[in-house]
Amino acid sequence: MELYEAMNRRRDTRSEFTGSPPAPEVLDRLLRAAHSAPSVGMSQPWVFVTVHAEETRRAFRDHVAQRREEFASLLEGERADTFARIKVEGIMESGLGIVVGHDPTTAGEVVLGKQTVADTSLFSVCLAIQNLWLAATAEGIGVGWVSFYREEFLADLVGFPEHVRPVAWLCVGEVAALPEVPDLERFGWRARGPLERVVHAERHGWS
Amino acid sequence: MELYEAMNRRRDTRSEFTGSPPAPEVLDRLLRAAHSAPSVGMSQPWVFVTVHAEETRRAFRDHVAQRREEFASLLEGERADTFARIKVEGIMESGLGIVVGHDPTTAGEVVLGKQTVADTSLFSVCLAIQNLWLAATAEGIGVGWVSFYREEFLADLVGFPEHVRPVAWLCVGEVAALPEVPDLERFGWRARGPLERVVHAERHGWS
Repeated sequence: MELYEAMNRRRDTRSEFTGSPPAPEVLDRLLRAAHSAPSVGMSQPWVFVTVHAEETRRAFRDHVAQRREEFASLLEGERADTFARIKVEGIMESGLGIVVGHDPTTAGEVVLGKQTVADTSLFSVCLAIQNLWLAATAEGIGVGWVSFYREEFLADLVGFPEHVRPVAWLCVGEVAALPEVPDLERFGWRARGPLERVVHAERHGWS
Repeated sequence: MELYEAMNRRRDTRSEFTGSPPAPEVLDRLLRAAHSAPSVGMSQPWVFVTVHAEETRRAFRDHVAQRREEFASLLEGERADTFARIKVEGIMESGLGIVVGHDPTTAGEVVLGKQTVADTSLFSVCLAIQNLWLAATAEGIGVGWVSFYREEFLADLVGFPEHVRPVAWLCVGEVAALPEVPDLERFGWRARGPLERVVHAERHGWS
């Protein structure tokens, strides 16, 4: 698939999973795409745990359901009604979870480019996720990023050592189709804004 | 350009800039690619400041040069010699800097999906950067991410308000060619590792 097409077709997927996880050779290409992302000081500070096991996914789904309730309890009126219609995860339906973690120790103590901004290593992990997401789109695979979780719970669930921080649970699986319009826009939660709002010439606040 | 080709051709660019910034219509496509990235709760929490002004770029280059010296002073022996050969920025040569910032206030106080992991909004900014980087690759434009800076300095330089955090200075410009092999690998700083090292089945530590 052409790059710009992949960017435009990419969607955060929740309801469209068919129940089949990606075939092993497709999964391999997705992980290789992630692994080819740029990283500070060539540290490649990412970790991927592929979760097919139903028991693990069920435990995570139950945890996420509770966090959803907590969030719902903060909302009132139209916001509460709108949120009630929005699906926030496809953990069981997707057939595969990929837990992405940040391991800041992969390149030792002195990482080129990380000295002044320690988070650059965390940023690298996100770049890898976007590569995976675009590759999935090109392969006809849906990806849904779940963020309704407590980090300690997820770290414990997949056995991350103390120094590895969970960054995402990605629901990854075959889809009937990718939605044309993002769910949050379709259900009236929030629409995309114009580019002009976020671009400034020379200094912030000028345009 | 095909997606996987863009991923494989993408390089962190330092020495290959010709001095010409991207043409306005190309820059517009790069920023639109960034702006089409996924974001938590459709918050689109990114800010882009396009810096053509030589004075601003010169001030940043001088700041980065000092940070480079600080990092170099931590190294000894072979590490010091190897680092001495590595160029860490193309701020003047690229013709354009894009300062990317994180504005967590774009979608108000209650952001869908950000309740339990506040950093998801920061993660979204990184996804946008990877979109921009891949789009640049497809357009024949080089991108070099500079991270040798103090955040306060850069925030002040481009006039970010208190709540906007700088995430990257990207050197963006036309290039003679993109290097085949990443600089850090070519100069012997650090090579890419195998995928197998970062993938775990079901739980961390298993494979």
